[in-house]
Amino acid sequence: MTDTTSTRKDNWGRWGADDQRGTLNLITDERVLAATQVCKTGKVYSLSLPIQQEGVPIFDYRGAPRRYSLTSASDKDPYVDFGAAPGVGSNEDMLVLASHSITHMDALSHVYTHEGIYNGFPRDEFSTQGAAEHCDIRTNGTFAGRGILLDLPRHQGVDWLEPGHAITSAELEACADAQGSELRTGDILLVRTGWLDFFAGGESGFAQPGLGVDAVSFVDDHDIAAVGCDNGAIEVMPFDGGVFLAVHIELLVKRGVTLMEHLKLSELAADGCHEFFLSVGALPVTGAAGSPINPVAIG
Amino acid sequence: MTDTTSTRKDNWGRWGADDQRGTLNLITDERVLAATQVCKTGKVYSLSLPIQQEGVPIFDYRGAPRRYSLTSASDKDPYVDFGAAPGVGSNEDMLVLASHSITHMDALSHVYTHEGIYNGFPRDEFSTQGAAEHCDIRTNGTFAGRGILLDLPRHQGVDWLEPGHAITSAELEACADAQGSELRTGDILLVRTGWLDFFAGGESGFAQPGLGVDAVSFVDDHDIAAVGCDNGAIEVMPFDGGVFLAVHIELLVKRGVTLMEHLKLSELAADGCHEFFLSVGALPVTGAAGSPINPVAIG
Amino acid sequence: MTDTTSTRKDNWGRWGADDQRGTLNLITDERVLAATQVCKTGKVYSLSLPIQQEGVPIFDYRGAPRRYSLTSASDKDPYVDFGAAPGVGSNEDMLVLASHSITHMDALSHVYTHEGIYNGFPRDEFSTQGAAEHCDIRTNGTFAGRGILLDLPRHQGVDWLEPGHAITSAELEACADAQGSELRTGDILLVRTGWLDFFAGGESGFAQPGLGVDAVSFVDDHDIAAVGCDNGAIEVMPFDGGVFLAVHIELLVKRGVTLMEHLKLSELAADGCHEFFLSVGALPVTGAAGSPINPVAIG
Amino acid sequence: MTDTTSTRKDNWGRWGADDQRGTLNLITDERVLAATQVCKTGKVYSLSLPIQQEGVPIFDYRGAPRRYSLTSASDKDPYVDFGAAPGVGSNEDMLVLASHSITHMDALSHVYTHEGIYNGFPRDEFSTQGAAEHCDIRTNGTFAGRGILLDLPRHQGVDWLEPGHAITSAELEACADAQGSELRTGDILLVRTGWLDFFAGGESGFAQPGLGVDAVSFVDDHDIAAVGCDNGAIEVMPFDGGVFLAVHIELLVKRGVTLMEHLKLSELAADGCHEFFLSVGALPVTGAAGSPINPVAIG
Repeated sequence: MTDTTSTRKDNWGRWGADDQRGTLNLITDERVLAATQVCKTGKVYSLSLPIQQEGVPIFDYRGAPRRYSLTSASDKDPYVDFGAAPGVGSNEDMLVLASHSITHMDALSHVYTHEGIYNGFPRDEFSTQGAAEHCDIRTNGTFAGRGILLDLPRHQGVDWLEPGHAITSAELEACADAQGSELRTGDILLVRTGWLDFFAGGESGFAQPGLGVDAVSFVDDHDIAAVGCDNGAIEVMPFDGGVFLAVHIELLVKRGVTLMEHLKLSELAADGCHEFFLSVGALPVTGAAGSPINPVAIG
Repeated sequence: MTDTTSTRKDNWGRWGADDQRGTLNLITDERVLAATQVCKTGKVYSLSLPIQQEGVPIFDYRGAPRRYSLTSASDKDPYVDFGAAPGVGSNEDMLVLASHSITHMDALSHVYTHEGIYNGFPRDEFSTQGAAEHCDIRTNGTFAGRGILLDLPRHQGVDWLEPGHAITSAELEACADAQGSELRTGDILLVRTGWLDFFAGGESGFAQPGLGVDAVSFVDDHDIAAVGCDNGAIEVMPFDGGVFLAVHIELLVKRGVTLMEHLKLSELAADGCHEFFLSVGALPVTGAAGSPINPVAIG
Repeated sequence: MTDTTSTRKDNWGRWGADDQRGTLNLITDERVLAATQVCKTGKVYSLSLPIQQEGVPIFDYRGAPRRYSLTSASDKDPYVDFGAAPGVGSNEDMLVLASHSITHMDALSHVYTHEGIYNGFPRDEFSTQGAAEHCDIRTNGTFAGRGILLDLPRHQGVDWLEPGHAITSAELEACADAQGSELRTGDILLVRTGWLDFFAGGESGFAQPGLGVDAVSFVDDHDIAAVGCDNGAIEVMPFDGGVFLAVHIELLVKRGVTLMEHLKLSELAADGCHEFFLSVGALPVTGAAGSPINPVAIG
Repeated sequence: MTDTTSTRKDNWGRWGADDQRGTLNLITDERVLAATQVCKTGKVYSLSLPIQQEGVPIFDYRGAPRRYSLTSASDKDPYVDFGAAPGVGSNEDMLVLASHSITHMDALSHVYTHEGIYNGFPRDEFSTQGAAEHCDIRTNGTFAGRGILLDLPRHQGVDWLEPGHAITSAELEACADAQGSELRTGDILLVRTGWLDFFAGGESGFAQPGLGVDAVSFVDDHDIAAVGCDNGAIEVMPFDGGVFLAVHIELLVKRGVTLMEHLKLSELAADGCHEFFLSVGALPVTGAAGSPINPVAIG
């Protein structure tokens, strides 16, 4: 069912020494075309939370995203000198926000270990001014394919997985089986933990439910192309085994699996829509290690 | 062939007094589902130019978009105190950019006349701090459907339409006929003028080719849901008839037609891909009058 | 003791219809020269709190000030191509901050009533893009003169005035008398409430001690040129008599008295330095309604 | 006439291994007090250019400083709910600007060589997120003392020194002699090259007049505490001897001499005011390598 043996644990070099797309390489044109055939309703889903200063998850060191007005009707007839009719003008904004604000995706240069980023590119390439020389968001920020939602809270009969719950491969397999969701090579896996609902309750702290290291084999076994979750870091927090960014290191760094965080999965879940066409168009910011995104799912 | 009579010239009230989506209402779920059936190759196209400071079209008053590093490997073992292995860390960015930077789309609150924005919402609602109360980018920023590219330079046998060239409905009809592109209600119309190629030549000034007021009837006649171009403002510059923002007023303000500017259409054109599935997921910034976008087309 | 009768209550027109400096007009060159003669020690005091994200007073809607690195040694030998020796480079920053961040001063365009800003300039001149046409920070941001510190907590034998305490003219007079501080026309009055010490204790809320409306007559009687405090808004909060910005309206709008907030007065107080030469050089940002400042006092 | 022998060429360790103020240590309280006695007119001079996007010198990589409106009268009665009278409100701004924008000063951490920054602190301390651990702008950003203007164009009978002109110690000595300006230990030396007038003519390129390496001995011989110029980098450009940042390395890195660039010296020059009291209050941004400044001179 997968392109590779299930023992493959590290994709450095798998698609060549120059590769910057990682497991997105698994999404061939044929698979995209096939994915367009899974839609049943044509309903369009936005998987992004609103970008605003309050009521959404924000990490302090990133700061809340800010919108400032650049032009407005308070600018008296700004274009009259250029031939505009009185009263005509435009409203525009300035945005100041972290590339990893709210609903966002990671470029493959986002996390590094002492050995470097994905595919062995040097860990210190991304400098203060220089930004990513390899694996910036332009290289993995545009993709589409078959999306599968594994709705763990629904399967387990809870409102949300408990903060600190480390999701296992067995849980993912059981959920997929119960849903009747067959995973295929190159699929985009979205895992609902319910954490955003827990967050909305106002009592959230550091701990979050998320993938444990054990769940990595699920991604391997099914040759998943990208993973998204409704939590802050895909992975369980506190980190599995106390290893900082353990799952990021396994998926993003070692395997080149594109990750998406803080996805709004509640509408898909409410509709019981577990299979859909998904497209992602990140902002192609030259050199950036991530981008806010608004993935679009078609049910 | 259209849902309405071709004499309809103003959509205020057409979808109710509270409507904030304008002609995107024409894209029903059924039409989205049908649009998924037009793909032939499964090739994924990004329609966004890179977001960077140079080499792309930038309006002075908006400023060039900026990316600053927020974290990098120069931050010595930032997470060791939290259990990280030596050498582990993350690269992140801050983005400072106009909502209408480079490849972007307009919210229906973007342009106003003395009568207000689309559907008659007050022209002064969008204030310095308050931002859009109606028709912010969240209301029209997520959509998908059948995309049609009209490749005017190819049809007319030129590299690009001349700066200042006002495209007519007749030119659009002739191009559609020659391409064999039948327009359907709720389609997303992308018009290639070739201007980005002209810009790349380095001699661009204020003048650009684009839609003239005459072309508005083409949008009416075919009940187009959204319009995108490879130029800076959809419309011809200098403005048609010397009327500032003439086509924005006709399409965006009066009709509620969502507009996308600075689309990178060269790859679709090179492949002769004139019909495709298109999805757009703008950043859902609360209150914003626009957003940079990276539309994704599936050939 | 003052240039004007104590019944003068409104300075609109006092220095001409075009005036944009308000009571700073009271600081003649002669008075500046005289002020240089009051120093006794030559000790240099910075009256600004550090500009940082935590540990200092920040109003939510302004956001915490942010510093991002623009260049650093992580940018490998950035100038070698320009003739630099290996290892040579520069560290630089980007600043993103409100003009009224932490220790700051108000331009005379900062507050408006239904009648306009100081001297009757229109209240809607300051637009989203246009900024201040009159009374921007350039017009009052540079001044110097004799500074007098009235150390109210010391005089009253407390650590700080209680939050919500509305300072009266009588309290200011009594403190001045006890200190032996004679006020002169054109003086810069700094009032210590102790609030920053209260804030440092970590329990601060909305309420702050500050000038009540009654204290305005002290400013009138002594023809004070500018007023600074160690609290957030000069004036008592909740506002005196429930009138929003009551003291700003009296001092800034009606009289054109330049105001400085969040001044760090603890060092002057600790040294018992109540009379000093003070100079202020705000950032002369064209159109801005305020600026962060670092006033320099010479004891 | 100086505190040290004129052969001292490197101040690392001169004021202790922990020193972060460099030659500002030369400005004792006694010297500040003495400096208050040099004023003759009491006239107040702002030495800062306006902070704006056009008409002032801006380096591309730093970007033009930007001001955005944060609040304005377009925000309808924003405070009525809090007890404000109708029509009452405030105008505020957001500033986005490089720490080295337009008229600015360098922290001693601004430039590094392979040996580190001033006093031997590590060259890689200033990281992307971490910023300066030593010698940030807070450590040298507040000072005052006796200022001396050497008006070279006036002395040499020209409008400005030619771009590329490397100023020598002999030229500085000759100008000081002709002006009758006796330099004293701890003085703040301002050198007028006339470059801003040349820039205002609109034909400026990369080349600028400025200090050559030879001029460093003038700073040594007179034990100058800080140096400011009306050009972009204190030093001549192209750099003296083709050594990138040659004078920054000699003055800022080796000697810990605080530097100020793009000073507006034209008013002092026009008044023939060559001796004055000068105070500088940079924004005390924690970790920053520089700050925009508005130095205040009293004639």
